[in-house]
Amino acid sequence: MEVIKPYKRGCGYSYALGAFPTMEMLTKRPEIAVGVFVHSSFTDRAKVENLCRKIGVPVWNNDKAIARLSDKENVFVIGVFRTAEQRLDPEKPHVMLVNPSNMGNVGTILRTCLAFGIHDVAVVAPGVDWFNPKVVRASMGALFSLRIAMYDSFEEYVSFASGVGREYFPFMLNGGAEVTPASCPKPDLYTLIFGNEATGLPAEYAEIGTVIKIPQSGEVDSLNLTIAVGIGLYSFSERR
Amino acid sequence: MEVIKPYKRGCGYSYALGAFPTMEMLTKRPEIAVGVFVHSSFTDRAKVENLCRKIGVPVWNNDKAIARLSDKENVFVIGVFRTAEQRLDPEKPHVMLVNPSNMGNVGTILRTCLAFGIHDVAVVAPGVDWFNPKVVRASMGALFSLRIAMYDSFEEYVSFASGVGREYFPFMLNGGAEVTPASCPKPDLYTLIFGNEATGLPAEYAEIGTVIKIPQSGEVDSLNLTIAVGIGLYSFSERR
Repeated sequence: MEVIKPYKRGCGYSYALGAFPTMEMLTKRPEIAVGVFVHSSFTDRAKVENLCRKIGVPVWNNDKAIARLSDKENVFVIGVFRTAEQRLDPEKPHVMLVNPSNMGNVGTILRTCLAFGIHDVAVVAPGVDWFNPKVVRASMGALFSLRIAMYDSFEEYVSFASGVGREYFPFMLNGGAEVTPASCPKPDLYTLIFGNEATGLPAEYAEIGTVIKIPQSGEVDSLNLTIAVGIGLYSFSERR
Repeated sequence: MEVIKPYKRGCGYSYALGAFPTMEMLTKRPEIAVGVFVHSSFTDRAKVENLCRKIGVPVWNNDKAIARLSDKENVFVIGVFRTAEQRLDPEKPHVMLVNPSNMGNVGTILRTCLAFGIHDVAVVAPGVDWFNPKVVRASMGALFSLRIAMYDSFEEYVSFASGVGREYFPFMLNGGAEVTPASCPKPDLYTLIFGNEATGLPAEYAEIGTVIKIPQSGEVDSLNLTIAVGIGLYSFSERR
């Protein structure tokens, strides 16, 4: 049976718009694949169809469904997948996003996490729904290589997902004993914590770990969130 | 006389959409200010009006013009400015963008340049028109604190803008003797060079300087352009 309703948070399934994110979904998470829509004008069908046959996922030819699900973007392939809940690995480094509000930013951040070898991302609610097709697309399918979970609070995260000996690094503009990414400690197990695009982290995060401040000129009020995450990830991965 | 035509590349003027970028324009580049539209429902008029009076720039009350120029975004203030050509300072470090194609990315990059103390940006054509209101807005007005100039080729840039003793650092995924941002040389005068979002830098850029490769996991094909620029700027500014 084909699923062609527009995505809604919590509906149980979502869409990977485009051939590349769809292939990522089929190869990295075949167990959540429901089916794949392929447009009649798509010229590179063999790869998608062969993979679907191999893993037992149906291929649907339905141009109308693609037009309806893809908004106005040029999309010829759409992968339908179940939005299964995940658990973070408590023995791996994490990135935590506190109240992220922009779907494009979250997609870019997920892709950047994967580029620097981070596979676990915690989101503190309220925050963007990372199953939204816009996030999936902005992540270029990186989402399918990550474990992502939402928590109601930092405390809930600590009790469920945080391993023994983990150190916390809130990235803030002010507060605490500030260190730069270059001068900060180098623990084996860490969580890099970033706040909302407009408001940053709540002040109480200064109390939970080593506050990191990225040195900057003062000519702008703050770095873009995605840039701050990229620099944080680069700095921590570069030094091991 | 009020200018209310939609922006077109090369028309001689453009728009800063929003109170914050408009204030940046008025304070940093008063000489290019043409006038400011203020919406009848804008509640914080005094600051804008006082500044305009002080520097001799007209304030226009014209809700229709604001609706027409701002598309669908919530905008209550629009600054009109002349798009004057600029020259780079050959004795300062530069960022070079070769064929950038996404307006949001270029705006974010301009803001990130300013955050790390870079005031000169070279664009190699073809590339995004940085006077487009979408770029101005994405830069949060950082544009008005920068010198930006377009060149037809790298060679044209070298002959017009490049100072004596300048070193070039093309950021690439392959080619040349690769070094990381952490292990690369530390010249006083440098140009960090970044390619197009989808295609990267043309191969010949590997011949013009020290190729920099940002270490990454291989699980994604490449970093987002804005993230790569952020890490490059952070690395070069961090080490001086």
